[in-house]
Amino acid sequence: MATKKFINEPDSVVDDALQGLVKTNRNLRFHPSCKRVLLRIDYGEHVANGKIVLLAGGGSGHEPFAIGFIGKGLLTGAICGDVFASPPSNHVLAALEETRGEAGTVLFVINYTGDRLNFGLAAEKFKKSGGKVRVVVIADDIALENVENRIGSRGLAAATLIMKVAGAMTEAGKSLDEIADYAEKLNGRCATLGVSLYPCSLPNRPPMFELEQGKMEVGLGIHGEPGKSREDLRPARGIIPLMMDTIIGSQAVTNHQNHPLILLLNNLGSVSQIEMGILRGEIVNYIMDLKQEVSLFYQGTFMSSLDGKGISITAMRADDQVIKYLEFATDAEAWPRAFPGSAFNSFEQRLPDRVEDEKQMIERKGATLRKEEADLVKKCVQSACHALIEKRDFLNDLDGAAGDGDCGQTMAHAAKCILEANESLHWQNPASLLSQLAAIFQETVGGTGGAIYALLLEAASGSFEESAHPENWSHGLEIGLKAITEYGRAQPGDRTMVDTLHAVVDYMKRGSSFTNSQTIKEIGEIAKKAAESTATMKASAGRASYTAEAVQTKPDAGAMAASIWIGAICQKINGQISK
Amino acid sequence: MATKKFINEPDSVVDDALQGLVKTNRNLRFHPSCKRVLLRIDYGEHVANGKIVLLAGGGSGHEPFAIGFIGKGLLTGAICGDVFASPPSNHVLAALEETRGEAGTVLFVINYTGDRLNFGLAAEKFKKSGGKVRVVVIADDIALENVENRIGSRGLAAATLIMKVAGAMTEAGKSLDEIADYAEKLNGRCATLGVSLYPCSLPNRPPMFELEQGKMEVGLGIHGEPGKSREDLRPARGIIPLMMDTIIGSQAVTNHQNHPLILLLNNLGSVSQIEMGILRGEIVNYIMDLKQEVSLFYQGTFMSSLDGKGISITAMRADDQVIKYLEFATDAEAWPRAFPGSAFNSFEQRLPDRVEDEKQMIERKGATLRKEEADLVKKCVQSACHALIEKRDFLNDLDGAAGDGDCGQTMAHAAKCILEANESLHWQNPASLLSQLAAIFQETVGGTGGAIYALLLEAASGSFEESAHPENWSHGLEIGLKAITEYGRAQPGDRTMVDTLHAVVDYMKRGSSFTNSQTIKEIGEIAKKAAESTATMKASAGRASYTAEAVQTKPDAGAMAASIWIGAICQKINGQISK
Repeated sequence: MATKKFINEPDSVVDDALQGLVKTNRNLRFHPSCKRVLLRIDYGEHVANGKIVLLAGGGSGHEPFAIGFIGKGLLTGAICGDVFASPPSNHVLAALEETRGEAGTVLFVINYTGDRLNFGLAAEKFKKSGGKVRVVVIADDIALENVENRIGSRGLAAATLIMKVAGAMTEAGKSLDEIADYAEKLNGRCATLGVSLYPCSLPNRPPMFELEQGKMEVGLGIHGEPGKSREDLRPARGIIPLMMDTIIGSQAVTNHQNHPLILLLNNLGSVSQIEMGILRGEIVNYIMDLKQEVSLFYQGTFMSSLDGKGISITAMRADDQVIKYLEFATDAEAWPRAFPGSAFNSFEQRLPDRVEDEKQMIERKGATLRKEEADLVKKCVQSACHALIEKRDFLNDLDGAAGDGDCGQTMAHAAKCILEANESLHWQNPASLLSQLAAIFQETVGGTGGAIYALLLEAASGSFEESAHPENWSHGLEIGLKAITEYGRAQPGDRTMVDTLHAVVDYMKRGSSFTNSQTIKEIGEIAKKAAESTATMKASAGRASYTAEAVQTKPDAGAMAASIWIGAICQKINGQISK
Repeated sequence: MATKKFINEPDSVVDDALQGLVKTNRNLRFHPSCKRVLLRIDYGEHVANGKIVLLAGGGSGHEPFAIGFIGKGLLTGAICGDVFASPPSNHVLAALEETRGEAGTVLFVINYTGDRLNFGLAAEKFKKSGGKVRVVVIADDIALENVENRIGSRGLAAATLIMKVAGAMTEAGKSLDEIADYAEKLNGRCATLGVSLYPCSLPNRPPMFELEQGKMEVGLGIHGEPGKSREDLRPARGIIPLMMDTIIGSQAVTNHQNHPLILLLNNLGSVSQIEMGILRGEIVNYIMDLKQEVSLFYQGTFMSSLDGKGISITAMRADDQVIKYLEFATDAEAWPRAFPGSAFNSFEQRLPDRVEDEKQMIERKGATLRKEEADLVKKCVQSACHALIEKRDFLNDLDGAAGDGDCGQTMAHAAKCILEANESLHWQNPASLLSQLAAIFQETVGGTGGAIYALLLEAASGSFEESAHPENWSHGLEIGLKAITEYGRAQPGDRTMVDTLHAVVDYMKRGSSFTNSQTIKEIGEIAKKAAESTATMKASAGRASYTAEAVQTKPDAGAMAASIWIGAICQKINGQISK
């Protein structure tokens, strides 16, 4: 089954992508007569100034290589073949001719036979007509390092580092041979290895090979070909040492032990950002264990393999000159900033040993209740808790009809935690008490439900800073309701607990006395009626707003839960009054 | 089936990724007591200097948002929840407390209920203890613009643009209210819409929903939830107008008609670079058709949805101030450079109408043959062509045993093209003739095989610049062989056509006379013998080098093809001599 892609026709993939770049990046233009050759907009001036021309290219499907690296301080132009296919030599020759200058040209070839031949043929023709060109073949893959093969290693992401150095050297006025010789020298100091979890797929084609669940491909190239070996998938902390051991042990890296490393973590196409972050961390862990010095670390998409879900790591043995050149400014769009390795070592001091995530210790604060008042508050709260525990299944059933069916359970859990916290709660200080209850909801319930009650209680606690009269409770509920409508966005009529609370606050604002048994009884009844009325409401916020209306024929679970604890409190108060 | 990922344990995904960032980016550090809060390394100085603090965050899985945007000129810190889950409010409060300053803090909330509540609760507590904070809720999704929902639009990638503006404003010394008010104003000028081809998957989980072949999800958010509608998959040039029509027609965009647009193309996680390039181009096509003015265009991964294969496009109505702020420098690692929209308009003049890819016109050049010599050359070439055509199936069979089975076919095709080109070939000028033959191989055969012959012939043509004696042919073959061993890397013994050519060149270098019938006959025999001897060779280069040795028991097809045309030429010359 072909992998779905954001493309037009499969045949127009390369041309459409090149046009996308040229249409948006004002530093780029097409060759005057070849739409597969992209050039720096100011290549004429570059050549006229006697600067060395840098060209690279090969099959497409490896973006941003090479087109994303065209710019001041990097490539002068790039020649693009079809997906995973070498461009014909007359396109390479067209690029050479168009940028022909007295100073000469470095033509970078990523080592694949087709590219070597087509770029080589173009270079030979160019030389025959008097052109100055040095062909630099980049070969950095170490997957098959010990396998005898005259073709040499495959060319992988090291090309991007080497081209960057060469680009800075052109700006520094170096000669053709200086640049080409140094690039070849650097190639001998580079090692790259790839690992993939899923293969890529060509336009309108299924994935290029089968890679079973639980397996990963090690030592693959960038053309969707299988790798050197297929191994059991392991965690990131196992994959990185597997790769780094091979890379650090390669000839290119061991031959220059006394130089610090430059590391490049390359996304082969479709690895997510969170995974790239994890891999970055594991590379640092490995490096610090090994006590290797790293001068620069790069992470990004440098040389991809279409939509392959894999990575490659390139190591280059550095010297001071290389670092200077890598850090030299460029306006090539795909060149990212580097992370200096010197940051690696200072890290361990900065990492906290442990998250401090304990329940906040809440101090006694605000106005104080008389002993008998505090006892009533305690009885009310405990009564509310018992009622919620008792109605657990009822609330779960209501919630199951429209939401995720856990309203009863989460409310009962919070209630249990409050009952258990009994001794540590500041019953005489409502401001403290409400903050403590808020913390319990936040920590034991969590999620949206926990946050709504935490917000309600925390805001309400503000009502008791100066005084703790009966009307402070009514005011507290009012400012609590205000807070949850502000941050939760539900309004009366939206089929949420706001319907219950709003009805109660509205009734209490009429100024009834809270020592009047009839008033208290009415509050409980109003709450219940308001909660039940949500049965006929359309959900515009909260748990049920994403659910089809057809299933919403019962009252909202959250609204009913509020009426349950309000009802229990009212009953307890009336019991006290009637004594 | 769970999607394979580069992770350690599913539970450690967020912490591992955060550590990866802090371990590599020296501008970042952890909160002293919370490992889910990342801060600018110099946040203390920032606060001490009286600058406004900017905090953002939410569930993880949207990287680089928000952690990648911490840096000078952007965020002061970020609070990270579990994957797709709001952070608890005490973590938000810890971030607020740690960066508490006299100037105040803007707390950005990406509009989801859980974040609104948890960030809101933290802000309320912070205010209660005297903290200055403005909560700015970003809501830019227009998928459900006309659906009544009190919760408001979802918060998507517009947050990154708005945060960037706010970051520049902090550096410009603006006040808390100036920044928060302007951020809220900008939110009213933003519209975002997403489209996805494949859903994302949580760590160790299968894809979050089923999205059939041939379908795409339109109007989705960033939490793996299904979108507003499921539509037939269309080409990129159909997807972009579908998205842009909705975006351009949204209230936020239509309400400010007189301002130019800022556009942001966001990769939701795993769209390949070549696809992103195509989409960029289609956006410009749409904009130019519509004659809308674009001031800045951004492309990259700003706010992802784990490994979702989708994109979102954000439009913001600009003003001069916004542009200045967006272009203000930042060292946040994930902030990319913008492409100025002014480049869009100058594009059409720069695009070549058509690729000029015609066969090169090759001039007469080099030394000239006598009429009878030219006739012999013609007869030899034609005889070689007929022999290759005749041996088509034989060569295909040889090639099929070790390679892709098309050697006979491609050689016969080239031979036919040479025979057809008869009239236009410069038979009296070997330098021109060989270049013409090279061009025919390059254009009609292509690939590696075509390139090798093109290289051989093009290099050999160099032998006839000054003279056209019989020994120039021998010298031409020698320099041709040198060229293909240089660029093709095969050496004698590697089981390629080089074995045939090398044996012949080696024999001819011994200085035998080319008018001697016996010598000519021997050349043909040596070629045949050399080609046949490849049967026992191990392939180290060329078509067979990636194939198991067991199947290589017959001679190499390329080596045999070379012996066939050499043999045919020798036979023709001897026929002439014996006349």
